[in-house]
Amino acid sequence: MEKNQFSIFETELRVRPDDIDMFNHVHNSKYLDYVLAARYEQMEKFYGMPWEHFTKQGLGWVVSHVDINFKRPLLMNDLMLIRTGILNMNDKGCAVQFEIINQKTRKVASDGIFDYVLIDLNTSRGTKVTDEMIKAYSI
Amino acid sequence: MEKNQFSIFETELRVRPDDIDMFNHVHNSKYLDYVLAARYEQMEKFYGMPWEHFTKQGLGWVVSHVDINFKRPLLMNDLMLIRTGILNMNDKGCAVQFEIINQKTRKVASDGIFDYVLIDLNTSRGTKVTDEMIKAYSI
Amino acid sequence: MEKNQFSIFETELRVRPDDIDMFNHVHNSKYLDYVLAARYEQMEKFYGMPWEHFTKQGLGWVVSHVDINFKRPLLMNDLMLIRTGILNMNDKGCAVQFEIINQKTRKVASDGIFDYVLIDLNTSRGTKVTDEMIKAYSI
Amino acid sequence: MEKNQFSIFETELRVRPDDIDMFNHVHNSKYLDYVLAARYEQMEKFYGMPWEHFTKQGLGWVVSHVDINFKRPLLMNDLMLIRTGILNMNDKGCAVQFEIINQKTRKVASDGIFDYVLIDLNTSRGTKVTDEMIKAYSI
Repeated sequence: MEKNQFSIFETELRVRPDDIDMFNHVHNSKYLDYVLAARYEQMEKFYGMPWEHFTKQGLGWVVSHVDINFKRPLLMNDLMLIRTGILNMNDKGCAVQFEIINQKTRKVASDGIFDYVLIDLNTSRGTKVTDEMIKAYSI
Repeated sequence: MEKNQFSIFETELRVRPDDIDMFNHVHNSKYLDYVLAARYEQMEKFYGMPWEHFTKQGLGWVVSHVDINFKRPLLMNDLMLIRTGILNMNDKGCAVQFEIINQKTRKVASDGIFDYVLIDLNTSRGTKVTDEMIKAYSI
Repeated sequence: MEKNQFSIFETELRVRPDDIDMFNHVHNSKYLDYVLAARYEQMEKFYGMPWEHFTKQGLGWVVSHVDINFKRPLLMNDLMLIRTGILNMNDKGCAVQFEIINQKTRKVASDGIFDYVLIDLNTSRGTKVTDEMIKAYSI
Repeated sequence: MEKNQFSIFETELRVRPDDIDMFNHVHNSKYLDYVLAARYEQMEKFYGMPWEHFTKQGLGWVVSHVDINFKRPLLMNDLMLIRTGILNMNDKGCAVQFEIINQKTRKVASDGIFDYVLIDLNTSRGTKVTDEMIKAYSI
């Protein structure tokens, strides 16, 4: 993480009962939803350029690639700390690293990288990330 | 895919309305659920050693790592072909490649690799994949 | 059901592994999603006036009230028959009765009534169901 | 609500991005999940007889009937107050009323009644609610 100038931000979230699956663990696909929820909060709270800033312009960030490790299961009612930070960002999109910490054990439940591209919601095609956007996220 | 002796199996599945998200696409985390549904069917139908064979012994296959590309969005009501095949398998677990084809366009909506480990459902810890299991899945 | 002139239509659907919850049953809220999936298919297949007919006009059917009985749990991989039929329909909306049959046991897993209103997707407010719509659904 | 001696308890919860559907509203079935999350928290926090008290004895509360009104849509990121209270309780189960308030507008997004029965998790059959349980919940 020393290689870049981007900050790491933190969001706290609690497991909901409907996230639990047949193994009595959090279902694996829900981890992607947790990272989305954390990024959503952080876009508004820390970058000052929230999700709605893009929606209003007919734009949206969509995930093009995920690399995720499931290290230790999260259980019913667990409280998580979700730490995310941009790894790199250019006019096509950005890569965001994350880790989900179980607050009870302080151990990593999951980590990985999401690649995002900016799309035009009308055409569903990729569109240019502007310098203004890159600047807002370069903190 | 020529590098190994494992077969590729196919499952057909249709997008459900509740899979659609704020972008009017299939929500990204649902793709993981589609691969799970395909593997579940294929374990029973093609390998003759279904999910329940493991559950009855107090065992379960859990995902330890996912690498997934989101290439083209799936939309409401789309019919998919989910093709999966084992890449490698040993006494710890296995790697399964997949691709999700949109039946309308015949193009790849998503592809990637799931790594699975076999766990003891009582302890949540990894347990040995037996030779019998490896043999059943080596088709 | 003899009291009205509306038909009952049937849709077959299979439980997906991600529908299973901490009780190893289908999670209760998923039953609502199954009814939605059935109505979606039936709008296209039987009424000849699909979901997209409304979407293109900036309209959508949203649920205003649900009364649902959970009678017998659905389990992993169960195959369902979802039978639905309009109870009554006017210029505000319609009431749709449903029952979900477990194909293995032929017993009712769940039944109830959904009330729908037609809304303008731009304003999120109720809008008039036209005579043409009522006619298409009066079969 | 004056007719019974049971208290109303409150839980705060925020809409997650993965709860949003094709209408850019919270998907209707998620409201059931919100009520479950609220009851789960309240069982531990206010009644002193949490979910796990039942699970350890091989018991679980399952929903047998839901009557729910969808009054005003919840949107992305909305903060909710979920107020629930027991309407009546006997040795078979209990009825719980709820309302979900949108904290931004202070208006009711949804309200209704859940009926719960206590089941034996091994047999999936109804089992007797003990006097001790009724006493713990009679506050």
